[in-house]
Amino acid sequence: MTGRRTFIKQGSLLTTAGIVGSMLPLSAISQSKQAGTKPQPQQSKWLDGSRLVISVSMQFEAGGQPENAESPFPQNMQKGYKDLPAETWYQYGYKEGIPRMLDNWDKLGVKITSHMVGSAVLKNPSLAKEIVDRGHEAAAHGMNWATQYTMPYNEEKKFIKDGVDAIRKITGFDAIGYNANWLRRGENTLKILQELGFLYHIDDLSRDEPFIQTVNDKDFVTVPYTLRCNDILLIEGKNFSVDQFVNQVKMEFDQMYEESEKRRRQMSISFHDRIGGTPQMVQAAKELFTYMKKHQGVSFKRKDEIARMALEDKTTIRE
Amino acid sequence: MTGRRTFIKQGSLLTTAGIVGSMLPLSAISQSKQAGTKPQPQQSKWLDGSRLVISVSMQFEAGGQPENAESPFPQNMQKGYKDLPAETWYQYGYKEGIPRMLDNWDKLGVKITSHMVGSAVLKNPSLAKEIVDRGHEAAAHGMNWATQYTMPYNEEKKFIKDGVDAIRKITGFDAIGYNANWLRRGENTLKILQELGFLYHIDDLSRDEPFIQTVNDKDFVTVPYTLRCNDILLIEGKNFSVDQFVNQVKMEFDQMYEESEKRRRQMSISFHDRIGGTPQMVQAAKELFTYMKKHQGVSFKRKDEIARMALEDKTTIRE
Amino acid sequence: MTGRRTFIKQGSLLTTAGIVGSMLPLSAISQSKQAGTKPQPQQSKWLDGSRLVISVSMQFEAGGQPENAESPFPQNMQKGYKDLPAETWYQYGYKEGIPRMLDNWDKLGVKITSHMVGSAVLKNPSLAKEIVDRGHEAAAHGMNWATQYTMPYNEEKKFIKDGVDAIRKITGFDAIGYNANWLRRGENTLKILQELGFLYHIDDLSRDEPFIQTVNDKDFVTVPYTLRCNDILLIEGKNFSVDQFVNQVKMEFDQMYEESEKRRRQMSISFHDRIGGTPQMVQAAKELFTYMKKHQGVSFKRKDEIARMALEDKTTIRE
Amino acid sequence: MTGRRTFIKQGSLLTTAGIVGSMLPLSAISQSKQAGTKPQPQQSKWLDGSRLVISVSMQFEAGGQPENAESPFPQNMQKGYKDLPAETWYQYGYKEGIPRMLDNWDKLGVKITSHMVGSAVLKNPSLAKEIVDRGHEAAAHGMNWATQYTMPYNEEKKFIKDGVDAIRKITGFDAIGYNANWLRRGENTLKILQELGFLYHIDDLSRDEPFIQTVNDKDFVTVPYTLRCNDILLIEGKNFSVDQFVNQVKMEFDQMYEESEKRRRQMSISFHDRIGGTPQMVQAAKELFTYMKKHQGVSFKRKDEIARMALEDKTTIRE
Repeated sequence: MTGRRTFIKQGSLLTTAGIVGSMLPLSAISQSKQAGTKPQPQQSKWLDGSRLVISVSMQFEAGGQPENAESPFPQNMQKGYKDLPAETWYQYGYKEGIPRMLDNWDKLGVKITSHMVGSAVLKNPSLAKEIVDRGHEAAAHGMNWATQYTMPYNEEKKFIKDGVDAIRKITGFDAIGYNANWLRRGENTLKILQELGFLYHIDDLSRDEPFIQTVNDKDFVTVPYTLRCNDILLIEGKNFSVDQFVNQVKMEFDQMYEESEKRRRQMSISFHDRIGGTPQMVQAAKELFTYMKKHQGVSFKRKDEIARMALEDKTTIRE
Repeated sequence: MTGRRTFIKQGSLLTTAGIVGSMLPLSAISQSKQAGTKPQPQQSKWLDGSRLVISVSMQFEAGGQPENAESPFPQNMQKGYKDLPAETWYQYGYKEGIPRMLDNWDKLGVKITSHMVGSAVLKNPSLAKEIVDRGHEAAAHGMNWATQYTMPYNEEKKFIKDGVDAIRKITGFDAIGYNANWLRRGENTLKILQELGFLYHIDDLSRDEPFIQTVNDKDFVTVPYTLRCNDILLIEGKNFSVDQFVNQVKMEFDQMYEESEKRRRQMSISFHDRIGGTPQMVQAAKELFTYMKKHQGVSFKRKDEIARMALEDKTTIRE
Repeated sequence: MTGRRTFIKQGSLLTTAGIVGSMLPLSAISQSKQAGTKPQPQQSKWLDGSRLVISVSMQFEAGGQPENAESPFPQNMQKGYKDLPAETWYQYGYKEGIPRMLDNWDKLGVKITSHMVGSAVLKNPSLAKEIVDRGHEAAAHGMNWATQYTMPYNEEKKFIKDGVDAIRKITGFDAIGYNANWLRRGENTLKILQELGFLYHIDDLSRDEPFIQTVNDKDFVTVPYTLRCNDILLIEGKNFSVDQFVNQVKMEFDQMYEESEKRRRQMSISFHDRIGGTPQMVQAAKELFTYMKKHQGVSFKRKDEIARMALEDKTTIRE
Repeated sequence: MTGRRTFIKQGSLLTTAGIVGSMLPLSAISQSKQAGTKPQPQQSKWLDGSRLVISVSMQFEAGGQPENAESPFPQNMQKGYKDLPAETWYQYGYKEGIPRMLDNWDKLGVKITSHMVGSAVLKNPSLAKEIVDRGHEAAAHGMNWATQYTMPYNEEKKFIKDGVDAIRKITGFDAIGYNANWLRRGENTLKILQELGFLYHIDDLSRDEPFIQTVNDKDFVTVPYTLRCNDILLIEGKNFSVDQFVNQVKMEFDQMYEESEKRRRQMSISFHDRIGGTPQMVQAAKELFTYMKKHQGVSFKRKDEIARMALEDKTTIRE
């Protein structure tokens, strides 16, 4: 049995150094003093003492997309021709988007999870390696953009494994987390992931905190994902302007921060290379993360950290 | 004949305790004094003395949806497969959405009307019961998500009755109000509702105050509903960001509050489990309701209260 | 020849009383003094001395719509059934929308042009009459919502004439202005309008000031219309929130006001019964018009006033 | 070899007069002093000393559009009829839009690149000439709105050449830059452009700075374009309100200005005659450009200037 004490001793991943924030509003400080006077049981807080955990995704997909993949250009290409400007929209993802975001994460002191498509990794190996070298997590995101939920068992297993192998070969990172294209896993996906040694997946929106399922008689973690604070859904799907993205995510944070006083809460945000990596969106991220960091107890964590902490924690929700 | 005096004596439902707001702007107070000096007839005000009545809906639908029901995911699933992430989007409604909203209504001191789909109630009985136990109204919303306006008379009557029975069995509440899927009642719906003992329905947008129709030779109330302050239409249908929702509903309130000085006015707002129950939307509701509560004479009422008050009031509009 | 002097003597329509605004910013006042010291030729200003003319449209259409007309509800009704809630959305136009707007125009002291569909006038005659009785212009908008541009000459002529006759019969007003459904006139429309004694139409977006064409060897005025400040296009078509409507129209005004210092400029805004008549939109109109009225020389005019002034003015653009 | 010194001597295009901005925030000034004390190598800055280059596009297309071209009106015209109001929407582009923008560029002291469709130039020759006479660049944009990427080699070459010839004949300007309809060039386009003597094209979104490719064994420049700050995509495609356009472009600028301290950065903005030329959008442009001009080192350049500077600069990215 591993109790909290033991876990903190292991602790390489879970130092309090990851917890940011000192500019607490006065009202909050006085509450905090009260709490100090009379400590209360906080059964559902995070194991490492974080108040609110923020989980950031950075999709590394561009370069691996199929020919004439969907883009902001009118979807009316005549058959037999290449959508050349759309290709340059994707190229932006690795030429400008990822590098810009990497610089921003460094400035902010935030480590993120990068969901890497295998074919994109092979197309831009040095960039994939740099993501890992800068301390971010590499998670698997399929070998390419194929529809996964229709694949027979063996085909799907090879599809997932090829992606993991590509990431390992190029970056040296053993991916333990998975994200299916458009979150659309099939009925076999979790079993396959468990067989391949994955610890968690993110293709689930049902909760605002991680939970554990039993898959193949072993624990498997869901680190829940988001559509509400997701650049591709909001900017390309719902046609938000960048200031709307900021406003909406800020309101999400405010509520989550408030709830996290009494419950374990995890907030998820996601950025895709060619969308979240534009100057306007990086400006948005800077504004948002600067705002969040001003709140005491906010902790930005990679999803592998979250999954391991959830597995360790006896109070994690089980379904 | 029941006059106003008699009605107020009965009064269990209609105490002035439900009327909130004391932070009136100075200009309004001085107007109020003038009015005090020379009282004027106010024929169309509410029977219980409310200035403006706010009617809040909370849809309890998730868990009862059909397979591969519409969601924010691309509607392009191949035949024969389940849209697994979309299912988790719905699960969020009962795992996080309703519980979060219930806490918020408690903090705000607001009682709402919950439109409950029968199959959703059976799927999550304890949650349905908790809604009622916390003092909210359970109204009927069909046995499931089937299209109601195409049903023959007997089929529709059974469909409605099954939903009411499920609610009664689980929560102990006798629903007297009805809401059809997408408001789309058929030609027989009101007659059936009258036969089944309902007092009101909400599937009408024609007025900003309740009105009475004669159905089967008896009075039947319409407590009008809204698309303008409706989370599913604005957030999922029109792709509003949460701050747009706040801005638009605030402007609706400002005009309604102004008009309510001289006329009976009812404002309607609605929240669906998986949409209105997100952190960002609950933050929005908190901001909106806090703003509304600062205005004197604003009263948050369940729709059964509104319907009963309308039936009692001889000045209610008749159509 | 009718010069300016003569015209002002006729003047019942064109008094300076219609010109509002006294809360001019200091910077503007000092400019105004300078201009006073050394008067400059202002060839393109309005004949009555207005600096900027605002032309407001209020569509009176609800009640005349065809069965299952387009509405904010999902457009997926099964054949053979009535879209009952959509009908109540239209009813809102005459039960709440127009009355609310009429009160608002009175408070603001603004006279507008109401584009009246003949069948809507016949459906709600007393409301149509009240619009005219309160000093607004009745303009023709077809006998019903039929597609006009496909009609043969005689059918179209009868269609237009029936609408005018309905308006005259109910309101006593002789319509001299025309607006086709979705602005879609046909090749014969202007000729027919000239034959029927109309002075102007609005189905043209090409300019920000009125202009004259020769139709059947006589002058015919275009009082240009707008999509940019049009409630149906912005609120229902583009899914704007009401605050976006305010922001966009304000920016339109700011530029037009600036330009109107040196050129004749007309700004157009439009409100449909069931859209512009909601509480939130009337709040928006109140905010916008209050803002506009603070600027010196801003004049709100009915389109018949604008058309007559354009005909009288020798400097009006001719095409 | 042409070094920086030589280049500046040639210098008619690249004077520092084009660099604007003196209202630097205090914090920035103190940084600037520090930098002055200890100069650092700045390998990727612009040859003429600009900190950030802004590249503005003004499309001149209206009048050259095909019959019943796409517009904000419902796209449901019956066959065999003209969409007359849509035509007036396009006419607005040359009657009001371009003239208004020209006045605005003059007031702001900004020179832009006008992408001219040949048939539009022939339709409104004096306006096309005025654009060039006021100091703006004329770039080619095809002979008409035809789909270019499906044309065989010779047809495409004639199509491009006809457009250039029309511009030269009317305006006297030799176009050296190209923009394909919806950026959709074909596989032969760059080769043809090189053969016809063009120096650059803009149909590429992959970078935030110009770069050089080898085409037909000679250098050819890409001056990258934008969808993120593009009026037709944001206003007509994504249904942004004008204030959203302002907010989004401002955030783009803020990030680009920050990055430009250490890297060569080019920001692109685009305005189409009938969209960017409305009063509300010109007000938006005025607000944006006034904001940008307050930042030291911001330089507004025509794309021919940018292309020539990129060709001259040995540090320009080569692909």
